[in-house]
Amino acid sequence: MDHESRIANLFYPQSVAVVGSTSVGKIGYELIRQILDGGYQDVFAVNPKAQGVFSVPGYDAVIKIDRPVDLAVIVSPTATVPGVLEDCGQAGVKAAVIITAGFSEVGNSAGEAEIKRVAREHGIRFIGPNCAGFVNTGHHLFPTLETRPPAGGVAIVAQSGAVGGVILAWAKEYGLGISKFVSYGNRVDLNEIDFLRYLADDAETKVVGLYIESVTDGREFMQAVRECTRHKPVIVIKAGRTRSGRRATLSHTGSMAGADAVYDAALRQCGAIRVHTIEELFDLCKGFLYAPSPQGRHIAIVTNSGGPGVLAADRAEDIGLDVAEPSPALKETLSEFLPSHCALKNPIDLTVEGTEDGYRKTLLAVLQEYDAALALNIATPYLDSVSLARGVCDAAEQSGKPVVTGFLPERIVAESIAYLQERGVPNFSTGERAVAALAGMADYGESANQRVGEAASERVIALSLNRSFADSLNRSIALEPEAMAWLRENGIPVPDLRFATTPAEAVQGCREIGYPVVMKVVSPDILHKSDCGGVILDVEDDEAALAAFEAIEKAATGKDLRGVVIYPLIRDGQEVLLGLSQDPQFGPVVAFGLGGIYTEVWRDISLRVAPVDRVEAEAMIREIKSLPLLQGVRGQEPRDLDSLADVLVNFSRLPFRYPEISEVDLNPVFLFSQGLVVGDVRVIRRN
Amino acid sequence: MDHESRIANLFYPQSVAVVGSTSVGKIGYELIRQILDGGYQDVFAVNPKAQGVFSVPGYDAVIKIDRPVDLAVIVSPTATVPGVLEDCGQAGVKAAVIITAGFSEVGNSAGEAEIKRVAREHGIRFIGPNCAGFVNTGHHLFPTLETRPPAGGVAIVAQSGAVGGVILAWAKEYGLGISKFVSYGNRVDLNEIDFLRYLADDAETKVVGLYIESVTDGREFMQAVRECTRHKPVIVIKAGRTRSGRRATLSHTGSMAGADAVYDAALRQCGAIRVHTIEELFDLCKGFLYAPSPQGRHIAIVTNSGGPGVLAADRAEDIGLDVAEPSPALKETLSEFLPSHCALKNPIDLTVEGTEDGYRKTLLAVLQEYDAALALNIATPYLDSVSLARGVCDAAEQSGKPVVTGFLPERIVAESIAYLQERGVPNFSTGERAVAALAGMADYGESANQRVGEAASERVIALSLNRSFADSLNRSIALEPEAMAWLRENGIPVPDLRFATTPAEAVQGCREIGYPVVMKVVSPDILHKSDCGGVILDVEDDEAALAAFEAIEKAATGKDLRGVVIYPLIRDGQEVLLGLSQDPQFGPVVAFGLGGIYTEVWRDISLRVAPVDRVEAEAMIREIKSLPLLQGVRGQEPRDLDSLADVLVNFSRLPFRYPEISEVDLNPVFLFSQGLVVGDVRVIRRN
Repeated sequence: MDHESRIANLFYPQSVAVVGSTSVGKIGYELIRQILDGGYQDVFAVNPKAQGVFSVPGYDAVIKIDRPVDLAVIVSPTATVPGVLEDCGQAGVKAAVIITAGFSEVGNSAGEAEIKRVAREHGIRFIGPNCAGFVNTGHHLFPTLETRPPAGGVAIVAQSGAVGGVILAWAKEYGLGISKFVSYGNRVDLNEIDFLRYLADDAETKVVGLYIESVTDGREFMQAVRECTRHKPVIVIKAGRTRSGRRATLSHTGSMAGADAVYDAALRQCGAIRVHTIEELFDLCKGFLYAPSPQGRHIAIVTNSGGPGVLAADRAEDIGLDVAEPSPALKETLSEFLPSHCALKNPIDLTVEGTEDGYRKTLLAVLQEYDAALALNIATPYLDSVSLARGVCDAAEQSGKPVVTGFLPERIVAESIAYLQERGVPNFSTGERAVAALAGMADYGESANQRVGEAASERVIALSLNRSFADSLNRSIALEPEAMAWLRENGIPVPDLRFATTPAEAVQGCREIGYPVVMKVVSPDILHKSDCGGVILDVEDDEAALAAFEAIEKAATGKDLRGVVIYPLIRDGQEVLLGLSQDPQFGPVVAFGLGGIYTEVWRDISLRVAPVDRVEAEAMIREIKSLPLLQGVRGQEPRDLDSLADVLVNFSRLPFRYPEISEVDLNPVFLFSQGLVVGDVRVIRRN
Repeated sequence: MDHESRIANLFYPQSVAVVGSTSVGKIGYELIRQILDGGYQDVFAVNPKAQGVFSVPGYDAVIKIDRPVDLAVIVSPTATVPGVLEDCGQAGVKAAVIITAGFSEVGNSAGEAEIKRVAREHGIRFIGPNCAGFVNTGHHLFPTLETRPPAGGVAIVAQSGAVGGVILAWAKEYGLGISKFVSYGNRVDLNEIDFLRYLADDAETKVVGLYIESVTDGREFMQAVRECTRHKPVIVIKAGRTRSGRRATLSHTGSMAGADAVYDAALRQCGAIRVHTIEELFDLCKGFLYAPSPQGRHIAIVTNSGGPGVLAADRAEDIGLDVAEPSPALKETLSEFLPSHCALKNPIDLTVEGTEDGYRKTLLAVLQEYDAALALNIATPYLDSVSLARGVCDAAEQSGKPVVTGFLPERIVAESIAYLQERGVPNFSTGERAVAALAGMADYGESANQRVGEAASERVIALSLNRSFADSLNRSIALEPEAMAWLRENGIPVPDLRFATTPAEAVQGCREIGYPVVMKVVSPDILHKSDCGGVILDVEDDEAALAAFEAIEKAATGKDLRGVVIYPLIRDGQEVLLGLSQDPQFGPVVAFGLGGIYTEVWRDISLRVAPVDRVEAEAMIREIKSLPLLQGVRGQEPRDLDSLADVLVNFSRLPFRYPEISEVDLNPVFLFSQGLVVGDVRVIRRN
């Protein structure tokens, strides 16, 4: 049975057994009531007393049920769960939802291992344990205690049942159609990756909202999101961003949260849209479900009152939308039908006298020029808002472009909101929230356009390190001459260099390089060469070379001194740094920045899950704030960013070509107006 | 009659005339209905037909009313308003609300001038025109079409009636008590400053929420806010922050919005708390009204589900709250009564099994150690949330410390929210919004503590410029030698210098200063000296001095060359910049930064409305992100920040001592480990 049909057994069972007490007030009782209320009838109750409830017959084992059971919903006590699964297996149950808690989240890893074993033995796929169940509105199936939402195109996948529950409750209250909801709890079997893969092809799902605190496998996760975003937007909350947030995720899921900056990069790389609050997730799902995505960032705001229009415009510009003034031609058009007291800039203020026809005509006119529009109506109890909503909906339909609304305050315009909803125009509780949704939608529009050129292959054939470099790495830190040679082999420019073990060799090496030179200590014991006097800059002649050699010998007293390495002295290079490190969730990660104060104080670093292709490498370079320093501010020459991008691509592949490598720092790299060269290198092998 | 008793006539009239048509559906009709529904009976209708409505008698002029009228609410057509005011004046009306629009906001400045004249002639104080009226719940008076809110301690003052209307509607829906609301429209007479002054002493008002797009007078505004914040928190939205937002405020109020960074500085300097959205304003007002302000930033989060706790913790740390782990002693205490499956880190997760007693005891315990707590309850329909609310309220009362709640989703916990509200514990729609409110409250707690040492005198005796400097300024840009001398007189260290007009004088000057020196052109025609070759660095001997003089003469060909100025060559100074400029709303503004890339690319500048005292000057220095560069990163010596702060204080006073001065740039200033010295100066006089 393939992956998807297994999950199909979960979502589309022909019959369901609820295993657990059905006494009044017990979870089994409430679950069965919820399932029946939701319109699903093929339910059986299983508990030691064989107690039925409502119209549902009771049995004391699943195997006793005289019909095949596809899905078991388990809420029986923790200790009984392995036995229940055994019973299910014998009865031919294909999928289970284990709502029961008390496993790894409270330290009971043995119990968790046991249920995993039993389920695997019988080929049962399951969600949970310690989860809040799921919803499949298309199958009228609600095995969960959370609110039953209306049907529609949004799937919610949540590592936290409570976060999911809030979204479902809002979906019912504020009108958001849900296709599927899954709370996957401790994800012992099915996890976020499985559900993303399933939802990518689920015809009932148009938008995926995901709440995660950690991922099972970073690379697989990225692949699954990438597949999904090819077909539909994926909006993600990754919680546990901060120190205390991370501590909390550790305690309540027992999972290790990766460094947040890496998650941030990974999510962007696979086309997900990251948000930080449940409200943002909800709003963005709503926007995507009911409106097309803007093909650009020019938005018009049409309002009937000034202040809320200004607030929406402020927020829109804060988050990268462009609230430009209408063209003279458009102003001319608008002035033909709008009264003279209306402001024709943007926001376009129809004033409190704005009419149905005013909204309709204005929106139709501006949508000829803008990518999307926000229609604001700040109502008083004495205003006929429904007619305004009609004008807005007509314009949205006729234009085919994204139109969102901010009809408020909510209670006063309840009727209009219902009308907007019915005609498929998404309304938000403030104009600020409406433009935030538009911005997220524009992000997706953009990344959808970019995705064509994307996807550097992550499978690169692993090469062996050459003998001397491997030897050099044996003490886990590579020696500089070997590391430089290795970089050169891999397409990364290094300076001409000489290795010397005696004063005479050193002088000879200096002469060959040509004065002035730099002389550095080579010792597996010395990681920070400058700090101990192991780097002598600007060696100008033979005499200085001898002195430098002597000084380095002295600095390395008591250390395993292998010799010195000699480089030409480099001037006028702009220093940058390239780094490779290992993230526990995502593996190799590549970083770029200017080093020194720019990284230490300003944290001005760009980061990607490695490897990166040429397009992504260029994006990394462009995204640092110090970019003007490389482009030539204040009369300096612009630096060779083309070569830098090439090197970044080669550099990012190193951990895949050489799986023994753990970390590489190139710091500094000297970047010239033509070309670049590595100034220092540090390589650390895997343990 | 003093200022406050005039405004008292507005808020506490003995009788009210509503001037305008009272036909069904007209604004006058709706207004009278609203006023009557609100519980105020002493109303008269005034219109040409002398038409009464409901129980209200009609007259054809205010003067015909047989009782004294204190307040007129005017909704008659634009053109009639001056005549109505004349009638009011003759009838002895003391205050008016001019809701009628059609004045300066649509270009009718003449009409506006006319109503101003008539009102002044009769001593009538008024709000509007083009406003949404006001509310005084304490007097049961609602001359507005906006929602009638419940009574309580929050005053809302709004330049936008619609923004105010949204807040009033939310106040009713989500439970926020309002003392007064004022929409002041075109603020031809009474403005935000008047209302802030009134509210500072208004016993019914505990919190002030302000929405502004611009201010009438920046300095007066700051003074009024400062007076108010001595007694109660002032929360401000300043809209029109962005390019398009500003364009919108221009079109709908005709007022010039100052540069946003200056508003930001000014609001902080006078102790206001700035927020950016209506939701934030609403939440913060609610927090302040119902909970004491935290005396620090350590908060505990007590929750019954993981995900929402993590999201709240993330947001809390993002905005500067500290969600630290409990001390071992506190953990010990908690473990005595909490079940072992509870997470005792922070967030403290009571799990779905959390009880009334669990919340009560946990909150009481944590509030011994933390400054404030958030209690989260993510409810399902099957949970008894009211008992949890009881536990929370008990703990809030007994501890006396700030406790806020996030009981959600709203519809499911409606009963608990009502309970929390009744017992005065503020509930927010998400945990994220709850901690945002706590953060704002902690800001106020902090600024309240700091305010003791604050308030540099803004009144400094104006001095005359000395003759030669004044002469030098006659062409609006001062010459460098005079400007340097002037700085020295005012306590700002400048280098030793010589002015020379001939090659011989130049050589003599260089010798007196001591080689190496810097030679610069002195010409009123040359503003950017370096760009035209007018600065010669590192002049090493007499020969070089002659060559430099010649080069400068050549560079100044065709310009009014006055001579050269000679300074010692300065090395090793960290370059910083100090600037003074004029803001249209706030007058002199002082800026500090590191210059070059730090200001151009990073926008790393601190800004204050001038003058600043020593404490504020230190804060300016501390707040730049590049501070580590001045404190001595990477083995450099720390710079003399004490002297810098002294100079900043003196510098910030210059525009007050010398009102003729408009702008001063000291760039660079060389900052040493001991002392500092100005490297270049540019002074521009007022036109």
